[in-house]
Amino acid sequence: MNIKMLIYILGKILMIEGILMILPVSCGIVYGEAELFTYLILASVYILAGYLVSLKKPKNMTVFIKDGCIATALSWLVLSVCGCLPFVITKEIPSFTDAMFETASGFTTTGASILTDIEAMSHTSLLWRSLTHWIGGMGVLVFLLAVVPMTGGSNMNLMRAESPGPTVGKIVPKVRSTAKMLYYIYMAITALEIVILFACGMPLFDSICSAFGTAGTGGFAVRNDSFASYAPHLHWIVAIFMLVFGANFNFYYFLTTRQFSKAFKLSEVKVYLAVAAVATGVVCFSIFGIYGNLEEALRHSLFQVATCMTTTGFATTDFDLWPGLAKFVLVALMFIGACASSTGGGIKISRFQIMFKALKREIESYIHPKTVKKIHLDGKTVDSDVERSVALYFFIYLIVFVFSMFIVAFEGHDLVTVFTSVAATLNNIGPGLSLVGPTQNYSFFSDLTKWVLIFDMIAGRLELIPVLVFLNPFTYKGIIKKVPGIK
Amino acid sequence: MNIKMLIYILGKILMIEGILMILPVSCGIVYGEAELFTYLILASVYILAGYLVSLKKPKNMTVFIKDGCIATALSWLVLSVCGCLPFVITKEIPSFTDAMFETASGFTTTGASILTDIEAMSHTSLLWRSLTHWIGGMGVLVFLLAVVPMTGGSNMNLMRAESPGPTVGKIVPKVRSTAKMLYYIYMAITALEIVILFACGMPLFDSICSAFGTAGTGGFAVRNDSFASYAPHLHWIVAIFMLVFGANFNFYYFLTTRQFSKAFKLSEVKVYLAVAAVATGVVCFSIFGIYGNLEEALRHSLFQVATCMTTTGFATTDFDLWPGLAKFVLVALMFIGACASSTGGGIKISRFQIMFKALKREIESYIHPKTVKKIHLDGKTVDSDVERSVALYFFIYLIVFVFSMFIVAFEGHDLVTVFTSVAATLNNIGPGLSLVGPTQNYSFFSDLTKWVLIFDMIAGRLELIPVLVFLNPFTYKGIIKKVPGIK
Repeated sequence: MNIKMLIYILGKILMIEGILMILPVSCGIVYGEAELFTYLILASVYILAGYLVSLKKPKNMTVFIKDGCIATALSWLVLSVCGCLPFVITKEIPSFTDAMFETASGFTTTGASILTDIEAMSHTSLLWRSLTHWIGGMGVLVFLLAVVPMTGGSNMNLMRAESPGPTVGKIVPKVRSTAKMLYYIYMAITALEIVILFACGMPLFDSICSAFGTAGTGGFAVRNDSFASYAPHLHWIVAIFMLVFGANFNFYYFLTTRQFSKAFKLSEVKVYLAVAAVATGVVCFSIFGIYGNLEEALRHSLFQVATCMTTTGFATTDFDLWPGLAKFVLVALMFIGACASSTGGGIKISRFQIMFKALKREIESYIHPKTVKKIHLDGKTVDSDVERSVALYFFIYLIVFVFSMFIVAFEGHDLVTVFTSVAATLNNIGPGLSLVGPTQNYSFFSDLTKWVLIFDMIAGRLELIPVLVFLNPFTYKGIIKKVPGIK
Repeated sequence: MNIKMLIYILGKILMIEGILMILPVSCGIVYGEAELFTYLILASVYILAGYLVSLKKPKNMTVFIKDGCIATALSWLVLSVCGCLPFVITKEIPSFTDAMFETASGFTTTGASILTDIEAMSHTSLLWRSLTHWIGGMGVLVFLLAVVPMTGGSNMNLMRAESPGPTVGKIVPKVRSTAKMLYYIYMAITALEIVILFACGMPLFDSICSAFGTAGTGGFAVRNDSFASYAPHLHWIVAIFMLVFGANFNFYYFLTTRQFSKAFKLSEVKVYLAVAAVATGVVCFSIFGIYGNLEEALRHSLFQVATCMTTTGFATTDFDLWPGLAKFVLVALMFIGACASSTGGGIKISRFQIMFKALKREIESYIHPKTVKKIHLDGKTVDSDVERSVALYFFIYLIVFVFSMFIVAFEGHDLVTVFTSVAATLNNIGPGLSLVGPTQNYSFFSDLTKWVLIFDMIAGRLELIPVLVFLNPFTYKGIIKKVPGIK
């Protein structure tokens, strides 16, 4: 294990976090809030400490895939712990567990909150809270790769551990250029959303926070009723931007580089939009009787479909009160999730595409036993290693899900609460149903449950494997001679 | 496709069904019930028709795996349709859909019922209803293989399509001997249970029906309150027999042939018992406060754990009223299921064993990328084809599950009802929670939902693939030149 390299990466991450904290400091200056000093002091400490730790660039910059997993898991832990301190110090969230929950929920773009009164928070802290979504959405290691030069395969192993989806597509040959490109697109669309929301009448502060929450597909809002009290036309805008951020970013890369034919060939984006359209139709059919007005029913349907499918977690209405069919569709979308290489969570469309093709081939093999076929996606052959790990992903997902539910179930709440609280954190959505519904929050859970859900949020954001590698004791042994159970 | 062979098999199946109907006829004679004539006439028609159809043994007895799937799916359809006619004709279940639901539920050993008053049924029909469990438990094609001589690989393809579990273990080299051996063990343990129950004070009729229900891990009881009103010591006996029938039958084969070391090496049986023990402990902990009496709490825990894990579906109490933790454990057990090569349903322990080993290897491959390891189970290498199809099984299961829920959700019931009605039928359990809880029944569902659940029962019993092959239009085409979507 390359420990010097690990320390170097963590130092850089801490520095980046310190620098990003300057944004809430400026917000504090504008609103004249005393909380700014906490942020200012912490930012200085983080920048200085990070600088000192990463002063000496290690000679050996090699990062094996194992190291990539550890670096990623540790980075996210450092980010969350250091990011939650301002909440604890300003006493806006006095409990460390609660502050950690809120911050992990922010960075992992979950958006599950323990706050009972969001509007009582300072603007400084609210901005920091929303900014965590924006940072976590595209990934802080991806950001690091964009700004710090590293050697060949190493950065790829970092990017692979942090990026969502079954495979990591380098859109340009160099990882650094890919990371830069992703961040340029990300910043541009975020800026566009801020401008549009502000131009359409949303206050500037709300526009910035909402855009951060949309861009990272996070879900923290600055109002207690999430999006319900904003004007209807703002619902439409945010719904569309949620869908925009849930699409595969390769699509935007192809668009900006005028490779239109490549862009419109991306089957994942097509399937993603088709699923969203069908789901909106079914939900609208299911809730039409409640609203009796097509615009309203359609708006709430599209918004809630977008919020669940992209795993953002904003809400314009309490969908826990909707009929069973609408709720079922929304819960199903939470699992399907958004596209790979987007900021969204969930299992991801392309994993389903690969598995459906594998399933078709399996059934065919019963009909014509001798035909052996490779699976293709968008004209490329899906490697059998990728296929195997996608299939395993579903299983790992199931196991983490069931074990989490098992611990949460000890609190004795109803099954829908237990099921959707795990679903909403593991898929990085935010609100679930019943006791964790859109108008509720996670404050009532015990500390143990909160830590399980924190684990789920981070495991979900990093797509399980890196976290499991990080937690596996064998990762830290020199050589594994024999693992019990596997011969 | 070998159509002559298909017709021959279906004819034999019909004959067997007719012959088995003689048992309810004798029951009707004992109790002097008029229903016996319906059964007598139908039995004669089935035997005659089956005899005529299968009179000419086809020259070509080859059954490819595709034909095996079709033969199995069709056999189960014929069994259910012909088996439900007595209920319709005697007007004890006047609706064809309801009678089909009840019969498919019987043969697939689900035990979900649409009957609102079980005790109003004639003894003749109750015995037939329980007998369907017994026939379906070990499988009618396995029975056919035991009595009708067939050629080499062909019978293996039939057995593979009907038998539960990721692989089919021929316990002795010849399929016919394996099938016979399985049925001998099955009959012996069933007979033992009847004797013990009767000796311990259960009425003979109840003993026979209960033993049929336990042996097939079915779940139809002859009292409206299932097992609640039987004496406590009978609960213990039935709980233990449920666990006995949920274990891998290879275990009993090794025991009877005095291969004790082989028997006690079977890891699936060990894991199965360990899971049952832990689950009983957790459930007992969760419900202890309700009963306040260790014997009672332990008895209800063990019984309900056994009923859910072996997917039998009897109940001694309304576990829908239990705390969330207990309910969660029971629902989780419904999915885990029993052992392969048992009469139980669910996903099966050995599939989980294989996947856990694959998962361990996957994580290891991140730690030591160059190690390639094969998975072993009980000293045997797990073929990579088996591994792939087990992984796919989880996915197919998920998809069938979600699609079924989607259609059932249109009825607008609560999510727990929707979720557990599909879980209870696809896993062949019987009762679920909420509206389909242990004291409820399935009669309130619409016909569409009932047909979806009938599909789930049969798909679950045959472990999905044969049914999907049967329903795939390409199965019936001469040669597939190109399947859209798979290149």
